[in-house]
Amino acid sequence: MVPLAVSMGEPAGIGPDLILQLYARRVELALPPFLVFGHAGFLSSRAKRLGLDLVFTDAVSDFAQALPIRHIEGDVVDLPGEVHVPAGSVVIRAIEQAVAATLAGDCRAVVTAPIHKGALYETGFFYPGHTEFLAALCAEDGEEPLPVMMLAHEDLRTVPLTIHVPLKDVPALINRELILETLGVMARDLRARFGVAHPRIAVSGLNPHAGEGGAIGREDMEIIAPAIEAARAAGIDAVGPLPGDTLFYPPHWRQYDAVLAMYHDQALIPIKTVAFDAGVNVTLGLPIVRTSPDHGTAFGLAGTGKASAASMLAALRMADEMTTKP
Amino acid sequence: MVPLAVSMGEPAGIGPDLILQLYARRVELALPPFLVFGHAGFLSSRAKRLGLDLVFTDAVSDFAQALPIRHIEGDVVDLPGEVHVPAGSVVIRAIEQAVAATLAGDCRAVVTAPIHKGALYETGFFYPGHTEFLAALCAEDGEEPLPVMMLAHEDLRTVPLTIHVPLKDVPALINRELILETLGVMARDLRARFGVAHPRIAVSGLNPHAGEGGAIGREDMEIIAPAIEAARAAGIDAVGPLPGDTLFYPPHWRQYDAVLAMYHDQALIPIKTVAFDAGVNVTLGLPIVRTSPDHGTAFGLAGTGKASAASMLAALRMADEMTTKP
Repeated sequence: MVPLAVSMGEPAGIGPDLILQLYARRVELALPPFLVFGHAGFLSSRAKRLGLDLVFTDAVSDFAQALPIRHIEGDVVDLPGEVHVPAGSVVIRAIEQAVAATLAGDCRAVVTAPIHKGALYETGFFYPGHTEFLAALCAEDGEEPLPVMMLAHEDLRTVPLTIHVPLKDVPALINRELILETLGVMARDLRARFGVAHPRIAVSGLNPHAGEGGAIGREDMEIIAPAIEAARAAGIDAVGPLPGDTLFYPPHWRQYDAVLAMYHDQALIPIKTVAFDAGVNVTLGLPIVRTSPDHGTAFGLAGTGKASAASMLAALRMADEMTTKP
Repeated sequence: MVPLAVSMGEPAGIGPDLILQLYARRVELALPPFLVFGHAGFLSSRAKRLGLDLVFTDAVSDFAQALPIRHIEGDVVDLPGEVHVPAGSVVIRAIEQAVAATLAGDCRAVVTAPIHKGALYETGFFYPGHTEFLAALCAEDGEEPLPVMMLAHEDLRTVPLTIHVPLKDVPALINRELILETLGVMARDLRARFGVAHPRIAVSGLNPHAGEGGAIGREDMEIIAPAIEAARAAGIDAVGPLPGDTLFYPPHWRQYDAVLAMYHDQALIPIKTVAFDAGVNVTLGLPIVRTSPDHGTAFGLAGTGKASAASMLAALRMADEMTTKP
């Protein structure tokens, strides 16, 4: 079976721990085969630190007996919680090679372990996060796809229209083109990747009560509503703008296959509230499937074996389901 | 027993229905006695429309046998879903008299049924909502208290620092004094009204990831963090700013007695997500206890008997508990 590609993530964080711990439970969890892109020596030392007796291989076909690793040479040390700048280039190449292998069809999907941007910036990395880096790696003829970040847990799927920007900049970034393009990516990928034949998408309002007819802000009426109309005219079953709070009353969002929210916390709060520690970050809009856990590197827990692997496990399962459904 | 004061709310909405339906189940629900401020003839007709065989009284001591009503004269008609402008003055006087009776000690607390502001504005009412109107009614020597809106459901309690304002105006409205004063009201009322001996309050950040050290907006670092420091110096156990999304992961907020959020949806989304239809709106900072359901008038359901009374019931119970605890 074609494996999933797993990038190692920040070595000072919990990403490597979760990969190793999940691999150790591969039989009990019935995990699909995966290939880890990272530094073999480091992974072996982290496994020992965690008290895991694992064997490593470079052959994916040995997954049942040994953890397949695509070794990436470099200076990586096993120092939980301590950033070691030279490791950054291995972290980055792990992602690049995982993406290249998936684009080439040698892997089915990419599952990324958390990175620490602060550490990577010192190596010349300049992307705001995984999502934008992946879009650049998937460019064709210099054209980057629009990457769309979706948070998912069971039947709740939310997309923030704007992501890592100050709240004060959000209103000015909301425009018709971005809404239309994002809804287009969501509708297409809900069909293609999630098997939803007729995706219904709820769009939240920007202001309290979706602006209450203009009494509490005009963007809902003047920008978001017309963009939804245009999306509907283009055949996308989008509904809104709906008040951000009541939309997340579960009987409301359950009527939709996904929610397009206007900003970071509006999309992430409901996921964190319902998903506990098992939400998944999925990048839509790319030519490949990519998932990741929805948490960070948690330096304080690295090397302890105490971090919850629930979200990483959910990310592996979702990548598997998204690439095995008929 | 001193009764709760219940204001009738908008007659075209579901408020009167919920009051009547709950009264009809008073024995099964073991409801505390309450006195309804509203129009007797209208309430009697709405009861008949709902198929409820109720007797009315003006004596609170008859609560077991008949629904006590403090009649307010005026032009109120039983037209579910249709605003009848002249009824507005009765809606307003119901609130005024409920508050006056509670300030005088004739009632224990005020529970307000939903109003429809659009209908009231035509009668000269100019408050953005119940909360501000109640603060004005509770003014002493011309000094209005700072009313603080709290949404509550079981162990989750959230307060939006800013409420019904456009999102683009939120960052400029966040300042040290407002945060300090709001935290002061929260700490005091958590002790006095909720019996929390040592209130611990989490404060959310404004920007994604609470600004990530200034990389995603500076308000968290420059305004919110120093205000929290000042509150701590003043003896308030406040913690933050914490990232809005991860704060609402339930094991996180369960460490606190309440959360101070920066804006409307940040406070209301987690409540709607966990509380289904049973959240309660509590006004802190007033000399009286006031609760209300956290939903609106739901014109489409008025007169049908199909609206959920869960939130109104929770509002009655919370007002009761807040005024009977030792």
